[in-house]
Amino acid sequence: MTAQTKLDAWEQRTEWPLAGAAVIFLVAYAVGVLDQPAGAAAAAVGMVTAVTWALFAMDYVVRLWLAPRRWRWFYRHLFDLAIVVLPLLRPLRLLRLVTLIAVLQRAAGRAIRGRVVLYTVSGAILLVFVASLAVLEAERGQPDAHIVNFADALWWSMTTITTVGYGDMTPVSTTGRVIAVLLMIGGISLVGSITATLASWIVQRVADEDNAGRVVTTAHIERLMDEIQQLRGEVQRLQGVPARGDRPDG
Amino acid sequence: MTAQTKLDAWEQRTEWPLAGAAVIFLVAYAVGVLDQPAGAAAAAVGMVTAVTWALFAMDYVVRLWLAPRRWRWFYRHLFDLAIVVLPLLRPLRLLRLVTLIAVLQRAAGRAIRGRVVLYTVSGAILLVFVASLAVLEAERGQPDAHIVNFADALWWSMTTITTVGYGDMTPVSTTGRVIAVLLMIGGISLVGSITATLASWIVQRVADEDNAGRVVTTAHIERLMDEIQQLRGEVQRLQGVPARGDRPDG
Amino acid sequence: MTAQTKLDAWEQRTEWPLAGAAVIFLVAYAVGVLDQPAGAAAAAVGMVTAVTWALFAMDYVVRLWLAPRRWRWFYRHLFDLAIVVLPLLRPLRLLRLVTLIAVLQRAAGRAIRGRVVLYTVSGAILLVFVASLAVLEAERGQPDAHIVNFADALWWSMTTITTVGYGDMTPVSTTGRVIAVLLMIGGISLVGSITATLASWIVQRVADEDNAGRVVTTAHIERLMDEIQQLRGEVQRLQGVPARGDRPDG
Amino acid sequence: MTAQTKLDAWEQRTEWPLAGAAVIFLVAYAVGVLDQPAGAAAAAVGMVTAVTWALFAMDYVVRLWLAPRRWRWFYRHLFDLAIVVLPLLRPLRLLRLVTLIAVLQRAAGRAIRGRVVLYTVSGAILLVFVASLAVLEAERGQPDAHIVNFADALWWSMTTITTVGYGDMTPVSTTGRVIAVLLMIGGISLVGSITATLASWIVQRVADEDNAGRVVTTAHIERLMDEIQQLRGEVQRLQGVPARGDRPDG
Repeated sequence: MTAQTKLDAWEQRTEWPLAGAAVIFLVAYAVGVLDQPAGAAAAAVGMVTAVTWALFAMDYVVRLWLAPRRWRWFYRHLFDLAIVVLPLLRPLRLLRLVTLIAVLQRAAGRAIRGRVVLYTVSGAILLVFVASLAVLEAERGQPDAHIVNFADALWWSMTTITTVGYGDMTPVSTTGRVIAVLLMIGGISLVGSITATLASWIVQRVADEDNAGRVVTTAHIERLMDEIQQLRGEVQRLQGVPARGDRPDG
Repeated sequence: MTAQTKLDAWEQRTEWPLAGAAVIFLVAYAVGVLDQPAGAAAAAVGMVTAVTWALFAMDYVVRLWLAPRRWRWFYRHLFDLAIVVLPLLRPLRLLRLVTLIAVLQRAAGRAIRGRVVLYTVSGAILLVFVASLAVLEAERGQPDAHIVNFADALWWSMTTITTVGYGDMTPVSTTGRVIAVLLMIGGISLVGSITATLASWIVQRVADEDNAGRVVTTAHIERLMDEIQQLRGEVQRLQGVPARGDRPDG
Repeated sequence: MTAQTKLDAWEQRTEWPLAGAAVIFLVAYAVGVLDQPAGAAAAAVGMVTAVTWALFAMDYVVRLWLAPRRWRWFYRHLFDLAIVVLPLLRPLRLLRLVTLIAVLQRAAGRAIRGRVVLYTVSGAILLVFVASLAVLEAERGQPDAHIVNFADALWWSMTTITTVGYGDMTPVSTTGRVIAVLLMIGGISLVGSITATLASWIVQRVADEDNAGRVVTTAHIERLMDEIQQLRGEVQRLQGVPARGDRPDG
Repeated sequence: MTAQTKLDAWEQRTEWPLAGAAVIFLVAYAVGVLDQPAGAAAAAVGMVTAVTWALFAMDYVVRLWLAPRRWRWFYRHLFDLAIVVLPLLRPLRLLRLVTLIAVLQRAAGRAIRGRVVLYTVSGAILLVFVASLAVLEAERGQPDAHIVNFADALWWSMTTITTVGYGDMTPVSTTGRVIAVLLMIGGISLVGSITATLASWIVQRVADEDNAGRVVTTAHIERLMDEIQQLRGEVQRLQGVPARGDRPDG
């Protein structure tokens, strides 16, 4: 088994366990932010967070160790390193949930537009939920914060990702603003995705209307080819006929 | 008559009555919110609301009863159930008005872009109107509300659906914010629809420019086919000629 | 000369004079709003406004009179009537300036994308300028107005048409809000136009890349046709050969 | 060497030095705005700014002098003149950095969508950075300014370019508002670019799905042509056969 094959096998085997760990992390994160537990509950949340962190860190180390060309792998997975090392980026572990989306995908069929819609919608919902938790955690402690409960955080996230931006509440901490910028980028992508999917659908429908029964497909070429080959057959039989016609002359 | 056929027949027969009920509900809803009637008028509005609700509920029950596979139908029509059961979603009954739009559609022709524009524009107008009524009803009672009359509600709806979002007035109640989120989603779809329609139009016009007289259609293939078949005819006649030429030799 | 021809001839002859009248009206309108002239100057502005109004009203009456089917023309030109009758819509007379844009168009060439860009850019500039004047006129007199000078009005127009919508200044009068809604609609169209033009350009460039030398054009079909016709010619000469070969037998 | 060739040679030779000058100018500009240096440091920043200005001015003069038709060149490069003459537009010298982007481009390959993404992303980052510096410089001195440090300026730039526009901080000076308008235009282009790239990608993928193995390419035409030419060859051999058959008759 080559090194690359081993890495691939590891990634395939750990796909589901890591997605599971990401879900457990999400639940622990949500409980930690929303319930602000104390005592034993806080310890439990802290432990779950630590364990899921350890799993992701271990996965990173194993993959680095299995990679055939380690430096190259290291440079190409700086983002993975950042997710493991920087506490601010912890929620990005949820990117692992694309594995779950891939399952939904089988239900949605393999049509490209269906997949784009699926990724856009589930990505937007996840982004709004996680960003609301993260901004609430970041802002809650600020003296002049506008966003002090989860309902406010969700409302703010929705106004941001849709690029409406009322400004009735805005983050005041640096962490909160970084989260806001990620949401804005998500929002532009959301608008872009929806528009692009619609545009593609309309373009295709218009093309179908325009070209109904007028587009030349390989089926037309096949029919032409058939016709020409039958013609060749007849010409070849014709070559045989004068040949027969030659004999009486000879 | 199979169960599916009965369900289809029911849905076809009730299409117009339910669209009518939706219009009557809209009028009663608008009167209820805008006039805030008292006494007999309030009773009349309440009765109309109750009757239209009963019609939609009855329609839901009949369809569930007629459905060949009831559980499957139930799962696939959870949204219909929500519209019947949840008072907040009552305005969504107006989705029935797509039947009316379908009539306008016949006027607009069957071209796909015309239909997209028609649904977008009439959907946006209906959404702005209903959302303005709903947000006014939700906000009016709040102590710190910004939106306290219909003109404000309309203004706020317009700034929201266009994603401009000045923030000079924002909903403060949870119901108001849920309506706002629906408007924002409507807004993103509105921008997406307009852009997509324009893009499709430009793409088509550019393609027409580029390909004017250069696109291969089935008409070209027909001409090729004709030519080849005439050639075959001539080759076949040629097969007859040496045959005739054979006889003098015999 | 038929009635339709007369109407067309009138519209062609009045195209430039009315565009000129629209420009003069725009200048008078700008002077009236920005300088708030008094005495003789105010009288002059008022007179120019009245004269241009009279020209547009006269044009409307003449066109209605020349129209072959007057009721049909009336129904189809309700918008023209509104521009003449409603003072609020007076600035829309500037739509006449599309004649001027048509001139620029000749410079920009007839390529569809170039024309879309031209109409979008000149339309947006005109819309921002006129909306700034109109909103300033509408707001200036309000006690709690935010928009009280032309710089503010321009700034507000720009934040609105780009759908940024800071909300640092918003119109408070009904007229101001109607203008704002028109600007928002203009803004959505602006975003849509730019996106659509870009999308069309990229789609075309990608298609060119993909299909370079691989797209079947009528030129290919011509070459096929040529080849087949030469073949027919040869088969026909072949039919002549056995014919000649027949004679010695006869 | 013709005048045009000389101009082209000059532009090619100065491409990199001017991009370098633009980077040095950017660093000096950033230091000047962010550190607000005094004494020797301020003098150094001032000198670097003056030298880079002189380089750009010299380049403008040389190009004007080398241009074959000077007036025509002058009219077509009014924008270049404005960048040299107007202090407000100095940051636009950074447009020279497109040379650097052109280098990245070689890495990103020549695919049109990759290039659009590259220009959009690097353009947006540069625009946000420079606009933040410029708006900070413009606003800092204002008595009622909201934007008083670089973090605020960056935050404001991001909310503007994504068209979110919270309005929690807005420029109050005219220069600041001009920068804001440029950012808004940049934002509309950013949204447009991302949407258009996505739309093009989806349109292409959908077309690939639809047409897989069904699109007629020149390869099909080649095969048809081959078949017809083989047929001609056979017919020509056939013409030789009766010719041989003729001889015995003669």
